[in-house]
Amino acid sequence: MTDCIIVGSGAAGVSAALTLKANAKNFMLFGSPDLSEKIAKAERIRNYPGLSNISGKEFAEVLKIQLKEADIEVCNERVTGVYALKDKFSVLTEQGNTYESKTVIIACGVESVKQIDGETEFSGRGVSYCATCDGFLYKGKTIGVVCTSKRLEHEIGYLADFAKQVYLVPMYKDVEISRENITVIKKMPKKIDGKLRVDRLVFAAPPAEDIPAELPVDGVFMLRESVSPAILVGGLEQENGHVKVGRDTSTNLKGCFAAGDCTGRPYQYAKAVGEGNIAAHAVSEYLK
Amino acid sequence: MTDCIIVGSGAAGVSAALTLKANAKNFMLFGSPDLSEKIAKAERIRNYPGLSNISGKEFAEVLKIQLKEADIEVCNERVTGVYALKDKFSVLTEQGNTYESKTVIIACGVESVKQIDGETEFSGRGVSYCATCDGFLYKGKTIGVVCTSKRLEHEIGYLADFAKQVYLVPMYKDVEISRENITVIKKMPKKIDGKLRVDRLVFAAPPAEDIPAELPVDGVFMLRESVSPAILVGGLEQENGHVKVGRDTSTNLKGCFAAGDCTGRPYQYAKAVGEGNIAAHAVSEYLK
Repeated sequence: MTDCIIVGSGAAGVSAALTLKANAKNFMLFGSPDLSEKIAKAERIRNYPGLSNISGKEFAEVLKIQLKEADIEVCNERVTGVYALKDKFSVLTEQGNTYESKTVIIACGVESVKQIDGETEFSGRGVSYCATCDGFLYKGKTIGVVCTSKRLEHEIGYLADFAKQVYLVPMYKDVEISRENITVIKKMPKKIDGKLRVDRLVFAAPPAEDIPAELPVDGVFMLRESVSPAILVGGLEQENGHVKVGRDTSTNLKGCFAAGDCTGRPYQYAKAVGEGNIAAHAVSEYLK
Repeated sequence: MTDCIIVGSGAAGVSAALTLKANAKNFMLFGSPDLSEKIAKAERIRNYPGLSNISGKEFAEVLKIQLKEADIEVCNERVTGVYALKDKFSVLTEQGNTYESKTVIIACGVESVKQIDGETEFSGRGVSYCATCDGFLYKGKTIGVVCTSKRLEHEIGYLADFAKQVYLVPMYKDVEISRENITVIKKMPKKIDGKLRVDRLVFAAPPAEDIPAELPVDGVFMLRESVSPAILVGGLEQENGHVKVGRDTSTNLKGCFAAGDCTGRPYQYAKAVGEGNIAAHAVSEYLK
Protein backbone atom coordinates (compact mmCIF):
# COMPACT_ATOMS: atom_id res chain seq x y z
CA MET A 1 0.00 0.00 0.00
CA THR A 2 1.40 3.37 -0.98
CA ASP A 3 1.29 6.56 1.08
CA CYS A 4 -0.50 8.45 -1.66
CA ILE A 5 -2.02 8.12 -5.10
CA ILE A 6 -2.20 11.22 -7.24
CA VAL A 7 -4.93 11.12 -9.89
CA GLY A 8 -3.96 13.43 -12.74
CA SER A 9 -0.64 14.55 -14.18
CA GLY A 10 -1.39 18.18 -14.96
CA ALA A 11 0.33 21.09 -13.21
CA ALA A 12 -1.31 20.29 -9.85
CA GLY A 13 -0.48 16.59 -9.96
CA VAL A 14 3.14 17.19 -10.99
CA SER A 15 3.58 19.81 -8.26
CA ALA A 16 2.18 17.41 -5.64
CA ALA A 17 4.46 14.64 -6.90
CA LEU A 18 7.62 16.77 -6.73
CA THR A 19 6.82 17.77 -3.15
CA LEU A 20 5.85 14.27 -2.01
CA LYS A 21 9.18 13.12 -3.44
CA ALA A 22 11.01 15.88 -1.56
CA ASN A 23 9.18 14.68 1.57
CA ALA A 24 10.38 11.11 0.90
CA LYS A 25 6.87 9.72 0.52
CA ASN A 26 5.96 6.57 -1.32
CA PHE A 27 3.40 7.37 -4.01
CA MET A 28 2.03 6.76 -7.49
CA LEU A 29 1.22 9.40 -10.08
CA PHE A 30 -1.54 8.41 -12.53
CA GLY A 31 -1.83 10.31 -15.76
CA SER A 32 -0.72 10.38 -19.34
CA PRO A 33 2.75 10.44 -20.95
CA ASP A 34 1.84 13.89 -22.34
CA LEU A 35 1.03 14.92 -18.75
CA SER A 36 -2.04 16.95 -19.66
CA GLU A 37 -3.96 17.70 -22.82
CA LYS A 38 -4.73 21.13 -21.44
CA ILE A 39 -1.11 22.08 -20.78
CA ALA A 40 0.02 20.82 -24.16
CA LYS A 41 -2.68 22.85 -25.90
CA ALA A 42 -1.94 26.16 -24.14
CA GLU A 43 -0.70 28.62 -26.71
CA ARG A 44 1.23 31.03 -24.48
CA ILE A 45 1.69 31.17 -20.74
CA ARG A 46 2.58 34.69 -19.74
CA ASN A 47 2.06 34.88 -16.01
CA TYR A 48 3.74 31.81 -14.59
CA PRO A 49 6.53 33.02 -12.27
CA GLY A 50 9.86 31.59 -13.28
CA LEU A 51 9.12 30.84 -16.92
CA SER A 52 8.39 33.81 -19.07
CA ASN A 53 6.28 33.61 -22.18
CA ILE A 54 6.53 29.91 -22.95
CA SER A 55 4.18 27.67 -24.85
CA GLY A 56 2.19 24.94 -23.19
CA LYS A 57 4.22 22.37 -25.06
CA GLU A 58 7.47 23.83 -23.71
CA PHE A 59 6.03 23.89 -20.20
CA ALA A 60 5.05 20.22 -20.48
CA GLU A 61 8.55 19.36 -21.72
CA VAL A 62 10.16 21.13 -18.75
CA LEU A 63 7.86 19.30 -16.34
CA LYS A 64 8.62 15.95 -17.97
CA ILE A 65 12.37 16.53 -17.58
CA GLN A 66 11.84 17.56 -13.99
CA LEU A 67 9.86 14.40 -13.22
CA LYS A 68 12.58 12.31 -14.81
CA GLU A 69 15.30 14.04 -12.81
CA ALA A 70 13.32 13.39 -9.64
CA ASP A 71 12.88 9.75 -10.70
CA ILE A 72 9.09 9.99 -10.77
CA GLU A 73 7.21 7.83 -13.25
CA VAL A 74 3.79 8.58 -14.63
CA CYS A 75 1.58 5.49 -14.47
CA ASN A 76 -0.27 5.51 -17.79
CA GLU A 77 -3.54 3.90 -16.67
CA ARG A 78 -6.86 5.71 -16.73
CA VAL A 79 -8.39 5.83 -13.27
CA THR A 80 -12.07 4.92 -13.41
CA GLY A 81 -12.98 4.89 -9.74
CA VAL A 82 -11.69 5.86 -6.30
CA TYR A 83 -13.34 4.18 -3.34
CA ALA A 84 -12.99 5.41 0.22
CA LEU A 85 -12.69 2.38 2.49
CA LYS A 86 -12.20 2.45 6.24
CA ASP A 87 -8.61 3.65 6.54
CA LYS A 88 -7.52 3.56 2.94
CA PHE A 89 -8.53 4.10 -0.65
CA SER A 90 -8.98 1.62 -3.44
CA VAL A 91 -8.18 3.00 -6.89
CA LEU A 92 -9.44 1.16 -9.99
CA THR A 93 -8.12 1.65 -13.48
CA GLU A 94 -9.48 0.97 -16.92
CA GLN A 95 -6.81 -1.70 -17.29
CA GLY A 96 -8.61 -3.64 -14.57
CA ASN A 97 -5.97 -3.08 -11.90
CA THR A 98 -6.65 -2.13 -8.29
CA TYR A 99 -4.22 -0.08 -6.20
CA GLU A 100 -4.45 0.70 -2.52
CA SER A 101 -3.27 3.85 -0.84
CA LYS A 102 -3.48 5.59 2.52
CA THR A 103 -4.37 8.90 0.89
CA VAL A 104 -5.35 10.28 -2.51
CA ILE A 105 -4.91 13.62 -4.22
CA ILE A 106 -7.55 14.27 -6.87
CA ALA A 107 -5.99 16.48 -9.53
CA CYS A 108 -8.05 15.43 -12.52
CA GLY A 109 -8.76 18.89 -13.89
CA VAL A 110 -12.07 20.00 -15.28
CA GLU A 111 -13.83 18.49 -18.21
CA SER A 112 -13.84 20.59 -21.32
CA VAL A 113 -16.99 18.76 -22.39
CA LYS A 114 -19.96 19.58 -20.22
CA GLN A 115 -22.17 17.05 -18.54
CA ILE A 116 -25.34 16.09 -20.35
CA ASP A 117 -28.70 16.47 -18.67
CA GLY A 118 -29.61 13.28 -16.86
CA GLU A 119 -26.03 12.04 -16.82
CA THR A 120 -25.49 12.20 -13.07
CA GLU A 121 -29.10 11.25 -12.37
CA PHE A 122 -28.79 7.96 -14.27
CA SER A 123 -25.18 7.22 -13.29
CA GLY A 124 -25.17 3.54 -12.31
CA ARG A 125 -28.65 3.11 -13.81
CA GLY A 126 -27.66 2.86 -17.43
CA VAL A 127 -24.98 5.57 -17.60
CA SER A 128 -21.46 4.20 -17.43
CA TYR A 129 -17.97 5.67 -17.73
CA CYS A 130 -15.90 2.55 -18.19
CA ALA A 131 -16.16 0.24 -21.18
CA THR A 132 -14.02 -2.53 -19.73
CA CYS A 133 -15.88 -2.40 -16.41
CA ASP A 134 -19.46 -2.48 -17.64
CA GLY A 135 -19.31 -3.45 -21.33
CA PHE A 136 -20.35 -7.08 -20.76
CA LEU A 137 -23.61 -5.90 -19.15
CA TYR A 138 -24.81 -4.82 -22.59
CA LYS A 139 -24.30 -8.03 -24.51
CA GLY A 140 -26.78 -8.12 -27.38
CA LYS A 141 -28.22 -4.75 -26.44
CA THR A 142 -28.42 -1.28 -27.97
CA ILE A 143 -26.21 1.42 -26.51
CA GLY A 144 -25.31 5.03 -27.06
CA VAL A 145 -21.64 6.03 -26.76
CA VAL A 146 -20.71 9.68 -26.31
CA CYS A 147 -16.95 9.90 -26.83
CA THR A 148 -14.74 13.01 -26.46
CA SER A 149 -11.44 11.83 -27.87
CA LYS A 150 -10.14 9.69 -30.68
CA ARG A 151 -7.69 8.22 -28.19
CA LEU A 152 -10.62 6.40 -26.60
CA GLU A 153 -11.77 4.63 -29.79
CA HIS A 154 -10.35 1.30 -28.58
CA GLU A 155 -13.01 1.43 -25.86
CA ILE A 156 -15.71 1.86 -28.47
CA GLY A 157 -14.41 -1.22 -30.26
CA TYR A 158 -14.53 -3.13 -27.02
CA LEU A 159 -18.18 -2.12 -26.55
CA ALA A 160 -19.07 -3.03 -30.14
CA ASP A 161 -17.82 -6.55 -29.42
CA PHE A 162 -20.65 -6.99 -26.94
CA ALA A 163 -23.50 -4.76 -28.08
CA LYS A 164 -25.88 -5.53 -30.92
CA GLN A 165 -26.06 -1.88 -31.96
CA VAL A 166 -23.82 1.06 -31.02
CA TYR A 167 -24.90 4.66 -31.69
CA LEU A 168 -21.62 6.56 -31.58
CA VAL A 169 -21.87 10.29 -30.85
CA PRO A 170 -18.33 11.58 -31.40
CA MET A 171 -17.26 14.92 -29.86
CA TYR A 172 -14.11 14.92 -31.99
CA LYS A 173 -13.25 15.09 -35.66
CA ASP A 174 -12.06 12.34 -37.99
CA VAL A 175 -13.75 9.28 -36.61
CA GLU A 176 -11.63 6.29 -37.59
CA ILE A 177 -13.43 3.36 -36.07
CA SER A 178 -15.75 1.52 -38.41
CA ARG A 179 -17.85 -1.57 -37.68
CA GLU A 180 -21.04 -2.98 -39.05
CA ASN A 181 -22.91 -2.45 -35.81
CA ILE A 182 -21.63 1.13 -35.20
CA THR A 183 -23.73 4.02 -36.49
CA VAL A 184 -22.04 7.42 -36.23
CA ILE A 185 -24.39 10.27 -35.31
CA LYS A 186 -22.98 13.75 -35.77
CA LYS A 187 -25.33 15.56 -33.49
CA MET A 188 -25.06 17.14 -30.06
CA PRO A 189 -26.55 14.94 -27.36
CA LYS A 190 -29.00 16.90 -25.23
CA LYS A 191 -30.33 14.59 -22.59
CA ILE A 192 -30.16 11.07 -21.24
CA ASP A 193 -33.67 10.10 -20.26
CA GLY A 194 -35.68 7.22 -18.89
CA LYS A 195 -37.81 6.10 -15.98
CA LEU A 196 -36.06 3.82 -13.49
CA ARG A 197 -33.26 3.22 -15.96
CA VAL A 198 -31.97 4.91 -19.08
CA ASP A 199 -34.24 4.19 -22.04
CA ARG A 200 -33.35 6.88 -24.58
CA LEU A 201 -30.78 9.39 -25.75
CA VAL A 202 -32.25 12.74 -26.83
CA PHE A 203 -30.52 15.04 -29.31
CA ALA A 204 -30.40 18.80 -29.57
CA ALA A 205 -33.19 20.12 -31.79
CA PRO A 206 -33.71 20.53 -34.63
CA PRO A 207 -32.64 17.09 -35.79
CA ALA A 208 -31.52 16.52 -39.34
CA GLU A 209 -34.09 14.81 -41.51
CA ASP A 210 -32.32 11.48 -41.44
CA ILE A 211 -31.76 11.42 -37.67
CA PRO A 212 -34.58 11.02 -35.19
CA ALA A 213 -34.83 13.48 -32.29
CA GLU A 214 -34.19 10.62 -29.92
CA LEU A 215 -32.94 7.06 -30.02
CA PRO A 216 -34.03 4.17 -27.82
CA VAL A 217 -31.04 2.74 -25.92
CA ASP A 218 -30.46 0.32 -23.06
CA GLY A 219 -27.50 2.29 -21.77
CA VAL A 220 -25.18 5.21 -22.51
CA PHE A 221 -21.40 5.16 -22.18
CA MET A 222 -19.78 8.54 -21.57
CA LEU A 223 -16.15 8.14 -22.66
CA ARG A 224 -14.11 11.14 -21.59
CA GLU A 225 -10.38 11.63 -21.10
CA SER A 226 -11.14 12.72 -17.56
CA VAL A 227 -14.06 11.76 -15.43
CA SER A 228 -15.71 14.34 -13.23
CA PRO A 229 -14.43 14.10 -9.65
CA ALA A 230 -17.93 13.52 -8.26
CA ILE A 231 -18.34 10.46 -10.44
CA LEU A 232 -14.73 9.33 -9.93
CA VAL A 233 -14.90 9.46 -6.14
CA GLY A 234 -18.14 8.31 -4.56
CA GLY A 235 -19.38 10.59 -1.79
CA LEU A 236 -17.09 13.50 -2.66
CA GLU A 237 -18.77 16.76 -1.75
CA GLN A 238 -19.05 19.38 -4.45
CA GLU A 239 -19.86 23.06 -4.52
CA ASN A 240 -20.84 24.95 -7.68
CA GLY A 241 -19.65 22.11 -9.84
CA HIS A 242 -16.21 21.84 -8.23
CA VAL A 243 -14.75 19.72 -5.46
CA LYS A 244 -15.32 21.48 -2.16
CA VAL A 245 -11.99 21.90 -0.36
CA GLY A 246 -10.67 23.70 2.68
CA ARG A 247 -7.63 25.95 2.78
CA ASP A 248 -5.44 22.86 3.15
CA THR A 249 -7.09 21.21 0.10
CA SER A 250 -8.87 18.66 2.29
CA THR A 251 -12.23 17.36 1.08
CA ASN A 252 -15.14 15.96 3.06
CA LEU A 253 -13.51 12.50 2.82
CA LYS A 254 -10.73 11.86 5.35
CA GLY A 255 -7.40 11.39 3.59
CA CYS A 256 -8.74 12.63 0.26
CA PHE A 257 -7.35 15.94 -0.97
CA ALA A 258 -7.98 17.83 -4.20
CA ALA A 259 -5.90 20.32 -6.16
CA GLY A 260 -5.93 22.27 -9.40
CA ASP A 261 -8.74 23.13 -11.76
CA CYS A 262 -11.10 20.55 -10.21
CA THR A 263 -11.31 22.71 -7.05
CA GLY A 264 -12.47 25.79 -8.95
CA ARG A 265 -11.35 28.96 -10.69
CA PRO A 266 -9.01 30.56 -11.57
CA TYR A 267 -7.98 27.83 -14.01
CA GLN A 268 -4.34 28.85 -13.92
CA TYR A 269 -1.05 26.97 -13.77
CA ALA A 270 0.22 29.01 -10.82
CA LYS A 271 -2.91 28.25 -8.82
CA ALA A 272 -2.76 24.55 -9.70
CA VAL A 273 0.91 24.31 -8.80
CA GLY A 274 0.26 26.05 -5.47
CA GLU A 275 -2.57 23.72 -4.54
CA GLY A 276 -0.58 20.64 -5.55
CA ASN A 277 2.14 21.78 -3.18
CA ILE A 278 -0.31 22.40 -0.34
CA ALA A 279 -1.99 19.02 -0.93
CA ALA A 280 1.36 17.21 -0.73
CA HIS A 281 2.12 18.90 2.58
CA ALA A 282 -1.37 18.12 3.85
CA VAL A 283 -0.82 14.45 2.95
CA SER A 284 2.49 14.38 4.82
CA GLU A 285 0.80 15.98 7.80
CA TYR A 286 -2.11 13.51 7.61
CA LEU A 287 0.22 10.49 7.49
CA LYS A 288 1.80 11.52 10.79
CA MET B 1 -5.70 56.18 -7.35
CA THR B 2 -4.47 52.77 -8.51
CA ASP B 3 -6.54 49.60 -8.82
CA CYS B 4 -4.25 47.70 -6.49
CA ILE B 5 -1.19 48.02 -4.30
CA ILE B 6 0.85 44.89 -3.67
CA VAL B 7 2.87 44.99 -0.45
CA GLY B 8 5.83 42.67 -0.80
CA SER B 9 7.93 41.52 -3.73
CA GLY B 10 8.52 37.89 -2.83
CA ALA B 11 7.14 34.99 -4.85
CA ALA B 12 3.51 35.81 -3.96
CA GLY B 13 3.83 39.51 -4.76
CA VAL B 14 5.58 38.88 -8.09
CA SER B 15 2.98 36.27 -9.08
CA ALA B 16 0.15 38.70 -8.26
CA ALA B 17 1.87 41.46 -10.24
CA LEU B 18 2.35 39.30 -13.36
CA THR B 19 -1.32 38.33 -13.32
CA LEU B 20 -2.61 41.85 -12.63
CA LYS B 21 -0.52 42.97 -15.58
CA ALA B 22 -2.00 40.21 -17.75
CA ASN B 23 -5.43 41.44 -16.62
CA ALA B 24 -4.50 45.01 -17.67
CA LYS B 25 -4.86 46.41 -14.16
CA ASN B 26 -3.23 49.55 -12.90
CA PHE B 27 -1.13 48.73 -9.84
CA MET B 28 2.00 49.35 -7.77
CA LEU B 29 4.34 46.69 -6.42
CA PHE B 30 6.17 47.66 -3.24
CA GLY B 31 9.26 45.76 -2.28
CA SER B 32 12.99 45.67 -2.62
CA PRO B 33 15.29 45.57 -5.66
CA ASP B 34 16.44 42.12 -4.48
CA LEU B 35 12.75 41.12 -4.43
CA SER B 36 12.98 39.09 -1.22
CA GLU B 37 15.67 38.31 1.30
CA LYS B 38 14.12 34.91 1.78
CA ILE B 39 14.24 33.96 -1.90
CA ALA B 40 17.78 35.19 -2.29
CA LYS B 41 18.92 33.16 0.72
CA ALA B 42 17.33 29.87 -0.37
CA GLU B 43 20.09 27.41 -1.05
CA ARG B 44 18.31 25.01 -3.39
CA ILE B 45 14.73 24.88 -4.60
CA ARG B 46 13.92 21.35 -5.68
CA ASN B 47 10.16 21.18 -5.94
CA TYR B 48 9.13 24.25 -7.90
CA PRO B 49 7.45 23.04 -11.09
CA GLY B 50 9.15 24.44 -14.15
CA LEU B 51 12.55 25.19 -12.65
CA SER B 52 14.48 22.22 -11.47
CA ASN B 53 17.08 22.40 -8.78
CA ILE B 54 17.92 26.10 -8.87
CA SER B 55 19.31 28.35 -6.18
CA GLY B 56 17.26 31.09 -4.59
CA LYS B 57 19.53 33.63 -6.20
CA GLU B 58 18.88 32.18 -9.65
CA PHE B 59 15.14 32.14 -8.98
CA ALA B 60 15.23 35.79 -7.97
CA GLU B 61 17.19 36.65 -11.14
CA VAL B 62 14.62 34.88 -13.33
CA LEU B 63 11.78 36.72 -11.60
CA LYS B 64 13.55 40.07 -12.02
CA ILE B 65 13.96 39.48 -15.75
CA GLN B 66 10.32 38.46 -16.00
CA LEU B 67 9.18 41.64 -14.22
CA LYS B 68 11.32 43.70 -16.55
CA GLU B 69 9.91 41.97 -19.62
CA ALA B 70 6.40 42.65 -18.34
CA ASP B 71 7.37 46.28 -17.71
CA ILE B 72 6.66 46.07 -13.98
CA GLU B 73 8.70 48.22 -11.63
CA VAL B 74 9.34 47.47 -7.99
CA CYS B 75 8.74 50.57 -5.88
CA ASN B 76 11.59 50.53 -3.38
CA GLU B 77 9.84 52.15 -0.42
CA ARG B 78 9.19 50.33 2.83
CA VAL B 79 5.48 50.27 3.61
CA THR B 80 4.87 51.18 7.23
CA GLY B 81 1.09 51.25 7.36
CA VAL B 82 -2.01 50.31 5.39
CA TYR B 83 -5.24 52.03 6.38
CA ALA B 84 -8.66 50.80 5.31
CA LEU B 85 -10.80 53.87 4.52
CA LYS B 86 -14.37 53.81 3.27
CA ASP B 87 -13.91 52.60 -0.30
CA LYS B 88 -10.16 52.65 -0.61
CA PHE B 89 -6.86 52.09 1.13
CA SER B 90 -4.20 54.56 2.15
CA VAL B 91 -0.68 53.16 2.08
CA LEU B 92 2.09 54.98 3.95
CA THR B 93 5.79 54.46 3.38
CA GLU B 94 8.89 55.10 5.42
CA GLN B 95 9.81 57.76 2.87
CA GLY B 96 6.80 59.75 4.05
CA ASN B 97 4.73 59.18 0.93
CA THR B 98 1.05 58.25 0.86
CA TYR B 99 -0.51 56.21 -1.93
CA GLU B 100 -4.17 55.47 -2.49
CA SER B 101 -5.59 52.31 -3.97
CA LYS B 102 -8.94 50.61 -4.46
CA THR B 103 -7.55 47.28 -3.25
CA VAL B 104 -4.44 45.88 -1.57
CA ILE B 105 -2.70 42.53 -1.64
CA ILE B 106 -0.67 41.88 1.49
CA ALA B 107 2.25 39.64 0.54
CA CYS B 108 4.75 40.69 3.17
CA GLY B 109 5.92 37.21 4.14
CA VAL B 110 6.56 36.09 7.67
CA GLU B 111 9.09 37.56 10.00
CA SER B 112 12.06 35.36 10.61
CA VAL B 113 12.52 37.17 13.90
CA LYS B 114 9.75 36.39 16.34
CA GLN B 115 7.75 38.98 18.15
CA ILE B 116 8.95 39.96 21.59
CA ASP B 117 6.64 39.68 24.56
CA GLY B 118 4.79 42.94 25.08
CA GLU B 119 5.47 44.10 21.53
CA THR B 120 1.90 44.03 20.29
CA GLU B 121 0.54 45.08 23.69
CA PHE B 122 2.55 48.30 23.69
CA SER B 123 2.31 49.00 19.96
CA GLY B 124 1.48 52.70 19.69
CA ARG B 125 2.28 53.17 23.37
CA GLY B 126 6.02 53.28 23.13
CA VAL B 127 6.63 50.54 20.57
CA SER B 128 7.18 51.86 17.06
CA TYR B 129 8.10 50.30 13.71
CA CYS B 130 9.02 53.39 11.75
CA ALA B 131 11.99 55.63 12.54
CA THR B 132 11.02 58.42 10.16
CA CYS B 133 7.40 58.38 11.33
CA ASP B 134 7.94 58.48 15.07
CA GLY B 135 11.62 59.36 15.61
CA PHE B 136 10.95 63.02 16.45
CA LEU B 137 8.73 61.94 19.37
CA TYR B 138 11.86 60.80 21.19
CA LYS B 139 13.92 63.97 20.99
CA GLY B 140 16.26 64.02 23.98
CA LYS B 141 14.96 60.70 25.26
CA THR B 142 16.32 57.21 25.80
CA ILE B 143 15.24 54.49 23.38
CA GLY B 144 15.85 50.84 22.67
CA VAL B 145 16.25 49.78 19.04
CA VAL B 146 15.88 46.13 18.08
CA CYS B 147 17.11 45.83 14.51
CA THR B 148 17.07 42.70 12.32
CA SER B 149 19.12 43.77 9.34
CA LYS B 150 22.19 45.82 8.57
CA ARG B 151 20.25 47.32 5.68
CA LEU B 152 18.19 49.25 8.23
CA GLU B 153 21.15 50.94 9.93
CA HIS B 154 20.32 54.26 8.25
CA GLU B 155 17.16 54.27 10.35
CA ILE B 156 19.18 53.80 13.50
CA GLY B 157 21.28 56.80 12.50
CA TYR B 158 18.11 58.80 11.99
CA LEU B 159 16.93 57.88 15.50
CA ALA B 160 20.32 58.71 17.02
CA ASP B 161 19.95 62.24 15.61
CA PHE B 162 16.97 62.78 17.91
CA ALA B 163 17.49 60.57 20.95
CA LYS B 164 19.84 61.33 23.80
CA GLN B 165 20.72 57.66 24.23
CA VAL B 166 20.15 54.68 21.91
CA TYR B 167 20.50 51.09 23.14
CA LEU B 168 20.95 49.12 19.95
CA VAL B 169 20.09 45.42 20.10
CA PRO B 170 21.27 44.04 16.73
CA MET B 171 19.85 40.73 15.46
CA TYR B 172 22.54 40.61 12.77
CA LYS B 173 26.30 40.34 12.63
CA ASP B 174 28.91 42.99 11.87
CA VAL B 175 27.31 46.12 13.22
CA GLU B 176 28.77 49.04 11.30
CA ILE B 177 27.02 52.05 12.72
CA SER B 178 28.94 53.87 15.44
CA ARG B 179 27.90 57.02 17.29
CA GLU B 180 28.68 58.47 20.66
CA ASN B 181 25.11 58.05 21.87
CA ILE B 182 24.67 54.47 20.55
CA THR B 183 25.44 51.58 22.90
CA VAL B 184 25.41 48.15 21.24
CA ILE B 185 23.96 45.39 23.40
CA LYS B 186 24.57 41.85 22.16
CA LYS B 187 21.82 40.16 24.06
CA MET B 188 18.47 38.65 23.16
CA PRO B 189 15.61 40.96 24.08
CA LYS B 190 12.99 39.11 26.11
CA LYS B 191 10.23 41.51 26.88
CA ILE B 192 9.03 45.06 26.42
CA ASP B 193 7.43 46.13 29.65
CA GLY B 194 5.77 49.08 31.29
CA LYS B 195 2.55 50.30 32.81
CA LEU B 196 0.50 52.61 30.58
CA ARG B 197 3.49 53.08 28.31
CA VAL B 198 6.77 51.30 27.70
CA ASP B 199 9.25 52.00 30.46
CA ARG B 200 11.82 49.21 30.12
CA LEU B 201 13.41 46.62 27.84
CA VAL B 202 14.07 43.29 29.55
CA PHE B 203 16.78 40.88 28.36
CA ALA B 204 16.92 37.11 28.34
CA ALA B 205 18.52 35.74 31.53
CA PRO B 206 21.20 35.27 32.58
CA PRO B 207 22.62 38.66 31.70
CA ALA B 208 26.34 39.12 31.29
CA GLU B 209 28.00 40.85 34.17
CA ASP B 210 28.41 44.13 32.36
CA ILE B 211 24.82 44.26 31.08
CA PRO B 212 21.87 44.80 33.38
CA ALA B 213 18.92 42.43 33.11
CA GLU B 214 16.79 45.35 32.01
CA LEU B 215 17.25 48.89 30.75
CA PRO B 216 14.96 51.86 31.35
CA VAL B 217 13.72 53.27 28.04
CA ASP B 218 11.10 55.76 26.88
CA GLY B 219 10.34 53.74 23.79
CA VAL B 220 11.43 50.79 21.70
CA PHE B 221 11.82 50.76 17.92
CA MET B 222 11.43 47.39 16.25
CA LEU B 223 13.22 47.71 12.92
CA ARG B 224 12.47 44.70 10.74
CA GLU B 225 12.67 44.20 7.01
CA SER B 226 9.03 43.26 7.12
CA VAL B 227 6.40 44.30 9.57
CA SER B 228 3.88 41.77 10.79
CA PRO B 229 0.62 42.05 8.83
CA ALA B 230 -1.45 42.67 11.95
CA ILE B 231 0.65 45.72 12.78
CA LEU B 232 0.89 46.81 9.14
CA VAL B 233 -2.85 46.73 8.52
CA GLY B 234 -5.08 47.90 11.34
CA GLY B 235 -8.06 45.66 11.98
CA LEU B 236 -6.77 42.73 9.94
CA GLU B 237 -8.04 39.48 11.41
CA GLN B 238 -5.48 36.83 12.26
CA GLU B 239 -5.60 33.15 13.07
CA ASN B 240 -2.72 31.26 14.69
CA GLY B 241 -0.34 34.09 13.96
CA HIS B 242 -1.20 34.35 10.26
CA VAL B 243 -3.59 36.46 8.25
CA LYS B 244 -6.96 34.73 8.12
CA VAL B 245 -8.02 34.31 4.50
CA GLY B 246 -10.73 32.54 2.57
CA ARG B 247 -10.19 30.26 -0.40
CA ASP B 248 -10.09 33.34 -2.64
CA THR B 249 -7.43 34.99 -0.38
CA SER B 250 -9.94 37.56 0.88
CA THR B 251 -9.44 38.88 4.42
CA ASN B 252 -11.99 40.31 6.84
CA LEU B 253 -11.38 43.77 5.30
CA LYS B 254 -13.27 44.39 2.06
CA GLY B 255 -10.86 44.84 -0.85
CA CYS B 256 -7.89 43.57 1.17
CA PHE B 257 -6.41 40.25 0.07
CA ALA B 258 -3.39 38.35 1.37
CA ALA B 259 -1.05 35.82 -0.25
CA GLY B 260 2.09 33.86 0.46
CA ASP B 261 3.81 32.99 3.71
CA CYS B 262 1.80 35.59 5.67
CA THR B 263 -1.34 33.45 5.24
CA GLY B 264 0.27 30.37 6.77
CA ARG B 265 2.17 27.20 6.05
CA PRO B 266 3.51 25.58 3.95
CA TYR B 267 6.14 28.28 3.45
CA GLN B 268 6.81 27.27 -0.11
CA TYR B 269 7.37 29.12 -3.38
CA ALA B 270 4.74 27.08 -5.22
CA LYS B 271 2.13 27.85 -2.60
CA ALA B 272 3.05 31.57 -2.56
CA VAL B 273 2.93 31.79 -6.35
CA GLY B 274 -0.46 30.08 -6.39
CA GLU B 275 -1.96 32.41 -3.83
CA GLY B 276 -0.54 35.48 -5.57
CA ASN B 277 -2.29 34.34 -8.72
CA ILE B 278 -5.59 33.75 -6.92
CA ALA B 279 -5.33 37.13 -5.17
CA ALA B 280 -4.83 38.93 -8.48
CA HIS B 281 -7.90 37.25 -9.93
CA ALA B 282 -9.88 38.07 -6.78
CA VAL B 283 -8.85 41.72 -7.12
CA SER B 284 -9.99 41.79 -10.76
CA GLU B 285 -13.28 40.22 -9.72
CA TYR B 286 -13.69 42.70 -6.84
CA LEU B 287 -13.05 45.71 -9.10
CA LYS B 288 -15.97 44.71 -11.34
